[in-house]
Amino acid sequence: MKVEEIESFFKTLQDNICEAIEQEDGKGQFREDIWEHHSGGGGRTRLIQNGNVIEKGGVNFSCVRGEVHPRLRQQMNLSANDDFHFTATGVSIVMHPANPNVPIIHMNVRYFELSNGTCWFGGGIDLTPHYVVQEDARFFHQQLKTACDNHHPAFYATFKDWADDYFYIPHREETRGIGGIFFDYLKPDEAGNSQNLSKDSLFDFVQEIGGSFASIYTHLMHKHKNEPFTDEQKQWQYLRRGRYVEFNLVWDRGTKFGLETNGRTESILMSLPPQANWEYNFIPGEGSAEAETLGWLRKGIKWAK
Amino acid sequence: MKVEEIESFFKTLQDNICEAIEQEDGKGQFREDIWEHHSGGGGRTRLIQNGNVIEKGGVNFSCVRGEVHPRLRQQMNLSANDDFHFTATGVSIVMHPANPNVPIIHMNVRYFELSNGTCWFGGGIDLTPHYVVQEDARFFHQQLKTACDNHHPAFYATFKDWADDYFYIPHREETRGIGGIFFDYLKPDEAGNSQNLSKDSLFDFVQEIGGSFASIYTHLMHKHKNEPFTDEQKQWQYLRRGRYVEFNLVWDRGTKFGLETNGRTESILMSLPPQANWEYNFIPGEGSAEAETLGWLRKGIKWAK
Repeated sequence: MKVEEIESFFKTLQDNICEAIEQEDGKGQFREDIWEHHSGGGGRTRLIQNGNVIEKGGVNFSCVRGEVHPRLRQQMNLSANDDFHFTATGVSIVMHPANPNVPIIHMNVRYFELSNGTCWFGGGIDLTPHYVVQEDARFFHQQLKTACDNHHPAFYATFKDWADDYFYIPHREETRGIGGIFFDYLKPDEAGNSQNLSKDSLFDFVQEIGGSFASIYTHLMHKHKNEPFTDEQKQWQYLRRGRYVEFNLVWDRGTKFGLETNGRTESILMSLPPQANWEYNFIPGEGSAEAETLGWLRKGIKWAK
Repeated sequence: MKVEEIESFFKTLQDNICEAIEQEDGKGQFREDIWEHHSGGGGRTRLIQNGNVIEKGGVNFSCVRGEVHPRLRQQMNLSANDDFHFTATGVSIVMHPANPNVPIIHMNVRYFELSNGTCWFGGGIDLTPHYVVQEDARFFHQQLKTACDNHHPAFYATFKDWADDYFYIPHREETRGIGGIFFDYLKPDEAGNSQNLSKDSLFDFVQEIGGSFASIYTHLMHKHKNEPFTDEQKQWQYLRRGRYVEFNLVWDRGTKFGLETNGRTESILMSLPPQANWEYNFIPGEGSAEAETLGWLRKGIKWAK
């Protein structure tokens, strides 16, 4: 399978997701920026703003080519003399809804290929409810587990734990939300990495994960979009968005790598919310819905059967 | 001179600055949190909110003792077997005004001492106007230059360049504001580091810098606090605060070090604004005051005579 085929899948995935979100939103429409990367390739950045449901969100496709950056060479133990080129392509999504009862969602699916033939898939989906609803958390994880189980019996458990570890804010001792799945360096046919799946099978898996996004998120949008909310709940949402900013700017390796290697800043930082607030030492009242939500922001909770 | 003397100066400095800000604000009052650090020592965090002039600001004193953290050992080329303890004390300030015509200001003055007798001073002041006013920028830098010149003829030029480099946001290709001064590892009596000043002389310098804060900032508060502003200007302020968040969370070594070494999160992140906004790819109109301000956000501008 050629990279063009994978690239083409990601483009179609972007189209389908944008269409599904617009339909469920009922008002917001994506606007597109086409851009080129200085080293080769480029992307289609799509932004939705001030919709009925989505206050600000991005669905980005990119396919960038170039020489392997020194930072990545180091991470990959490549020799400084090797003349390696890469192709990196994928879809990256963050949605910040207006209604605090609708959760924030993030998905990224990506493929990376080196000129020496090495290649791998990576990605993840995680959900960040401003208010944790147990039924939603179980639904979300069950959907991901079903998608994973169709491809490998160990995928869900492994990638769920990986997400718990990845989407974690050490300086707050909180997970970003209720987690989901995260996977990286899924290489074909290498025992211990991909549990011996072929490239075709890994691509099937990534296609199913990517393809599951629209139905999962439109279900949650639909369920909560018309629920009333108070000013206090909106304020809580702004504080939770502040935590989202902290995670993305301080700890998210993807964001940091992008900013440090001269990526397209406006596309990388599209994950940031339209508005975030910080209040010194805010502690929600005992027994409040906000305090209950904080209680769910920890690793190791078993949401799926 | 003992560390207690320096600590005592920093406490008094905190008191004096809080008093001067409260007086110029006319409404906001600092509230204090006393805290202890797990490794020894602690601090007095002081927060002012919803004043006439200051929307949110912190004036923090701390004096922390403990074993030298592995991260710092590495930076300092210490052996892993050396049993080093440190004392770190200082005052750290960030003010976010309500009126976008009043600039954001930051100051930090600090002293660090190791159990083997090594010690140094560090610090800096920098100004982040939402709208650059040339007269203010000249005033600000001239005040700092005068304070520096009283102690060493090379200080201002060296520390001004250091601030230009330190308070820089690479992924935006912007300086955070109009800079100021920044200095670190000012060790007594070591040629090349402190230009051969004694510990007493370095402390004199730090005292003068710290002591200059209140008059500099209350002058700027006073000058601009009653100027009218529009909704559009307030929106611009929220975007500029977004940049402030980006600098502090992605690039500021002090913030990163604090968060990665288990510092007191709420005190470290008191530098974050009460509200910040992100708007995709916002570009101010040609010839606007906002565009003019962006033009001043670069290194190497000579503001002082």
